[in-house]
Amino acid sequence: MTPIMAKTEAAELINSARIRKKLAWADIAKEIDAPLVWCVAALLGQHPMSSGQAERVCELLELDAAVAESLQLQPARGLEPALLSDPTIYRFHEALSVYGPALKELIHEEFGDGIMSAINFKVDVARREDPDGDRVVVTFDGKFLDYRW
Amino acid sequence: MTPIMAKTEAAELINSARIRKKLAWADIAKEIDAPLVWCVAALLGQHPMSSGQAERVCELLELDAAVAESLQLQPARGLEPALLSDPTIYRFHEALSVYGPALKELIHEEFGDGIMSAINFKVDVARREDPDGDRVVVTFDGKFLDYRW
Amino acid sequence: MTPIMAKTEAAELINSARIRKKLAWADIAKEIDAPLVWCVAALLGQHPMSSGQAERVCELLELDAAVAESLQLQPARGLEPALLSDPTIYRFHEALSVYGPALKELIHEEFGDGIMSAINFKVDVARREDPDGDRVVVTFDGKFLDYRW
Amino acid sequence: MTPIMAKTEAAELINSARIRKKLAWADIAKEIDAPLVWCVAALLGQHPMSSGQAERVCELLELDAAVAESLQLQPARGLEPALLSDPTIYRFHEALSVYGPALKELIHEEFGDGIMSAINFKVDVARREDPDGDRVVVTFDGKFLDYRW
Amino acid sequence: MTPIMAKTEAAELINSARIRKKLAWADIAKEIDAPLVWCVAALLGQHPMSSGQAERVCELLELDAAVAESLQLQPARGLEPALLSDPTIYRFHEALSVYGPALKELIHEEFGDGIMSAINFKVDVARREDPDGDRVVVTFDGKFLDYRW
Amino acid sequence: MTPIMAKTEAAELINSARIRKKLAWADIAKEIDAPLVWCVAALLGQHPMSSGQAERVCELLELDAAVAESLQLQPARGLEPALLSDPTIYRFHEALSVYGPALKELIHEEFGDGIMSAINFKVDVARREDPDGDRVVVTFDGKFLDYRW
Amino acid sequence: MTPIMAKTEAAELINSARIRKKLAWADIAKEIDAPLVWCVAALLGQHPMSSGQAERVCELLELDAAVAESLQLQPARGLEPALLSDPTIYRFHEALSVYGPALKELIHEEFGDGIMSAINFKVDVARREDPDGDRVVVTFDGKFLDYRW
Amino acid sequence: MTPIMAKTEAAELINSARIRKKLAWADIAKEIDAPLVWCVAALLGQHPMSSGQAERVCELLELDAAVAESLQLQPARGLEPALLSDPTIYRFHEALSVYGPALKELIHEEFGDGIMSAINFKVDVARREDPDGDRVVVTFDGKFLDYRW
Amino acid sequence: MTPIMAKTEAAELINSARIRKKLAWADIAKEIDAPLVWCVAALLGQHPMSSGQAERVCELLELDAAVAESLQLQPARGLEPALLSDPTIYRFHEALSVYGPALKELIHEEFGDGIMSAINFKVDVARREDPDGDRVVVTFDGKFLDYRW
Amino acid sequence: MTPIMAKTEAAELINSARIRKKLAWADIAKEIDAPLVWCVAALLGQHPMSSGQAERVCELLELDAAVAESLQLQPARGLEPALLSDPTIYRFHEALSVYGPALKELIHEEFGDGIMSAINFKVDVARREDPDGDRVVVTFDGKFLDYRW
Repeated sequence: MTPIMAKTEAAELINSARIRKKLAWADIAKEIDAPLVWCVAALLGQHPMSSGQAERVCELLELDAAVAESLQLQPARGLEPALLSDPTIYRFHEALSVYGPALKELIHEEFGDGIMSAINFKVDVARREDPDGDRVVVTFDGKFLDYRW
Repeated sequence: MTPIMAKTEAAELINSARIRKKLAWADIAKEIDAPLVWCVAALLGQHPMSSGQAERVCELLELDAAVAESLQLQPARGLEPALLSDPTIYRFHEALSVYGPALKELIHEEFGDGIMSAINFKVDVARREDPDGDRVVVTFDGKFLDYRW
Repeated sequence: MTPIMAKTEAAELINSARIRKKLAWADIAKEIDAPLVWCVAALLGQHPMSSGQAERVCELLELDAAVAESLQLQPARGLEPALLSDPTIYRFHEALSVYGPALKELIHEEFGDGIMSAINFKVDVARREDPDGDRVVVTFDGKFLDYRW
Repeated sequence: MTPIMAKTEAAELINSARIRKKLAWADIAKEIDAPLVWCVAALLGQHPMSSGQAERVCELLELDAAVAESLQLQPARGLEPALLSDPTIYRFHEALSVYGPALKELIHEEFGDGIMSAINFKVDVARREDPDGDRVVVTFDGKFLDYRW
Repeated sequence: MTPIMAKTEAAELINSARIRKKLAWADIAKEIDAPLVWCVAALLGQHPMSSGQAERVCELLELDAAVAESLQLQPARGLEPALLSDPTIYRFHEALSVYGPALKELIHEEFGDGIMSAINFKVDVARREDPDGDRVVVTFDGKFLDYRW
Repeated sequence: MTPIMAKTEAAELINSARIRKKLAWADIAKEIDAPLVWCVAALLGQHPMSSGQAERVCELLELDAAVAESLQLQPARGLEPALLSDPTIYRFHEALSVYGPALKELIHEEFGDGIMSAINFKVDVARREDPDGDRVVVTFDGKFLDYRW
Repeated sequence: MTPIMAKTEAAELINSARIRKKLAWADIAKEIDAPLVWCVAALLGQHPMSSGQAERVCELLELDAAVAESLQLQPARGLEPALLSDPTIYRFHEALSVYGPALKELIHEEFGDGIMSAINFKVDVARREDPDGDRVVVTFDGKFLDYRW
Repeated sequence: MTPIMAKTEAAELINSARIRKKLAWADIAKEIDAPLVWCVAALLGQHPMSSGQAERVCELLELDAAVAESLQLQPARGLEPALLSDPTIYRFHEALSVYGPALKELIHEEFGDGIMSAINFKVDVARREDPDGDRVVVTFDGKFLDYRW
Repeated sequence: MTPIMAKTEAAELINSARIRKKLAWADIAKEIDAPLVWCVAALLGQHPMSSGQAERVCELLELDAAVAESLQLQPARGLEPALLSDPTIYRFHEALSVYGPALKELIHEEFGDGIMSAINFKVDVARREDPDGDRVVVTFDGKFLDYRW
Repeated sequence: MTPIMAKTEAAELINSARIRKKLAWADIAKEIDAPLVWCVAALLGQHPMSSGQAERVCELLELDAAVAESLQLQPARGLEPALLSDPTIYRFHEALSVYGPALKELIHEEFGDGIMSAINFKVDVARREDPDGDRVVVTFDGKFLDYRW
């Protein structure tokens, strides 16, 4: 009568093993043939993995089956409030605070009344070289959903 | 002794005139030869405009000089709290709540300890056609700044 | 140089005229041939109306063209915080606070990982007669969207 | 001198056992002959179960008597705040934020001054097939209570 | 095209007229033959009045028909947040903070799982003489509603 | 060097023992000859008990002396925030949100400027039979304290 | 049909007149023969004044009868949230944050279980000369109220 | 490699030992020859003690050296939020909410622009006998600091 | 019977006149021979000015005597909440969120238990040229105040 | 399968060892040849250390390799909310609340539209002797970043 390991605990064990084995997140993503951001989000507890994916991750990182069991759970999604003020994450929120209403105007002008889906959605992060300093380029790509009764 | 018009009031007048004249935001951006999202953000009160830009906007929209004066003010930036729960804007925050920690991991892995600047930064929104429904593609593009003492 | 009337002001005028003319919401919905809840939500400022709908509403209620102009605006959606504790609205939130996690479990079990859309969505309210006291029956009906990368 | 197991701990053990035994929530509901949503809510800690129900659940899931004892406790009801931002649950709150005032108007118009009870209340969730994508249909069904002095 | 007067504005006018005419709340309640607390709550904007009641109140206080029109509106109920910390109102909340869980225990023990209705409900306030200082006696009296699926 | 048991832990043990022994709260109150609501509040940690009371409770429930020691501690009073949204407790707050300002008006009209004490105070809960459904009757009874410099 | 002037508006007019007439608060307190802190609190809207006091204040400050009428109103008491962070007021809250639990311990040790009344209460502020810099001495003096059922 | 004991844990052990040994706070304060309120605040974790003081306290209460080590730590000061609503502590905040702006006015009138220091500060609590019931008298005594550039 | 102009309104008029006259803040500070940051803070409503300073400012900016009267008022100090998220101001808060605990450690190590005064305090901002981009240098300079009973 | 030690736990062990060994923060900073404030912030968990630095710190303080491993982790940065009201840290926030808008005005006047970086940033704290009492001097020094599209 032991409960399934919490996803936060699994994430902590995965990240610890990854660092100790000097593996990049991309190494794990390649191992399970998954998109990079999706894979990291899943390992941090935001997406359920298939049993095949979960088991290969645990094999690679030499972790218990208990971790693999946890990775397959349906998650309750969301951000730990303390992370909101971490500078790396905060800058995204600041950009939305400055440009959010402008994005809203332009989405409605181009597509009509509706939203960019955050479910039928993918996100990518890349480095773009630039002589004035390399740049972080993050692309949000979601299906447009129009308000439809 | 009348104060300079508040940027929120200027934005309301600009949007009202724009709608009544059936102009797209892109028409205004083209008029002042400015990037589209930057231009909309500036007209909504998030960036100061040069006097030339401000005057051309007011001429195009047949608005008073008082509006042009307001557009040149240095803004206090930020999002009206009520807008946080508007579905079009909320989806971006939801995406960050699901993928923010993954983006943080990958930025640090690729660039080291630092952030994507929200100041040396640009954002673009585009429509990508897709047989399963067109997609909203939003690109955040900011200079990487490493923690440097 | 007068701005377009705010949707909150338009809603107040519409409701005042509706009461004074002793018209039911259903009378207005029938006039513009729209679903009832959608129509009330739109008149309260949560959906944009077509110009035809807006004008017919203002004709029926003998309201100015300024109201019709306001009804066509793209809204910023959301609930005024004070309304959250109104008992009629609060009971829905209480029900979600008791049954929300159960609904989440059953949606995932039946449909897999995803959500009920609140955009491709309709809602209806009906009276069901019952010898122990008639019942309010509210149906939420949204397209299932699966998490899809 | 050991206290009765907390309902959150019981819920965790029940869900873990359910997953490991590959049982659906409906299998448990059928076992105790209870409505599906009520049963899941009760097992998650929102309703007290009778001793008969609690014992049959623990037998089915091979759980200790301590779990059955916990299931019979009178609950303190409510939603863990972190769950509010889970996308599956949030969409219901978003729908209420858009349509809540319209529902309030229509309830008062149809029934007079009062509320839909959240106590003399039931909720059901169903899948409705649709060529454009199946739909989640959630029905809230509560007795109307009029303000009565 | 003038909107119906807000209930807060009507309440302010009623209270001002009542004070200037040196009328007690009980004088108004008697005039319309209504329970005292209900009547005060209605005049402060928490209950709709019938047209007969509203008109008699306005006649008594020599107020415009606009006030009577406002009194008949369906209210959005709730407490202005600033009033929560007024000492006279705060003491009730403090008493609930100390005795609320005890009341919950005893209601469940006596009645089973359910609540005291706040809709099928009345409240009375009285003075009880006491040699150690008179006492305020407030009685909450609501129908018991059991959780009933 | 072990600290005195926290009152929350004592309350949990008392309630667990009470349930297992199938004792009503009234049985305990009678044992120590104390008013019912006061007794439950004290056992839940809101009032200190005398050593005699505490010891008789622990004897009745066959609990350790550590529990009796905890029951005599001076409490820090207050409501756990999660309990605010429990429906049984919430209804009292809702009633105060609807009737609080009316009670304030009537207390001041009857007694002058001051408050109902929440310290020199007692509360009782009773069942009143009613053909339309029995009623929960809760009486708040506090000494009036006038603002006195 | 004009409402009684709000106490905040009356306070603003009183303070403006006081400054322009170069009167100290003590001059007003002496005029109406009232304790100093009580008098300032009353003029700022926290206590009702008698008609005699209110009229003498308005005569002294050459203010309209409308101000005197407002001063006699029963107040809704409390602090405007913005004032909480004013440094002069904040230091009192900081002192309570450091010493509040110690005061609680010592009140209970000396008086038993109960509180210092904030209603049967007076407060005084004085200057105490000190070679190291004069000191602000504020005395809170309230009747002890024991928890008494 | 064990960390120094947290001040909250030390406070709990000190208070438990003090109660079991039937010592008053004043007994401890006399033992270390310290002002009473300062001493209680320090033992509750709000001030660092000298090693001599800390050791004498632990000798008196027969507590481990680990407690004495903790008492000498530099504290992070502040009030546990739950304590804000404890009635004994809340009454001080209520008094400040009613009289805070009046104290601010009088401090500025007497001393000019500045504050009462909460650092160069002492507080005392005393019982004042009174035929109408004894009174709690709390004196805040802080050096005046003028705004000085 | 007109109240003294609010400091926020005075600040708005001052800034509008300053911009229209193309004066730098330093021009005003020089005119009244005051430290630069102090002067801007005072004009924005955070410090009272002497009558001489206030009159010279209004003469320079050709503003009414009503503005000068407002500038001499004792302020209620504090930051408008919306400004907290303005990026220019937020970076200071972020720096404190990263370095605040380290500053606390070092202040206590160097000075003992106490604080940097924010009252006997000055702040300066300067540009420091740097080949990698000029730097903003802000110096906080406050008297150390030790906790002294 | 043990996770890497949390940075909060490492910070607690480091500070405990530092105190017991009677080492100043400056002793550790010198040992690893790092700027003082940076070093303290890193040891408190706000910056990652190189493996060399981390190992030398643990050697100096005789701490386990587990602490050194933790010090090298990429941190999630931010302030524990309880620390916001610690007086030593609060004074910095109060200064920003009084002078923040003035600093914003002067930064924009001198540098144009942009911010002081909190990433390309250093901070120093020093004692300045002063006959009226020594002063805490804290210097924030960040690269200016202009809004650049």
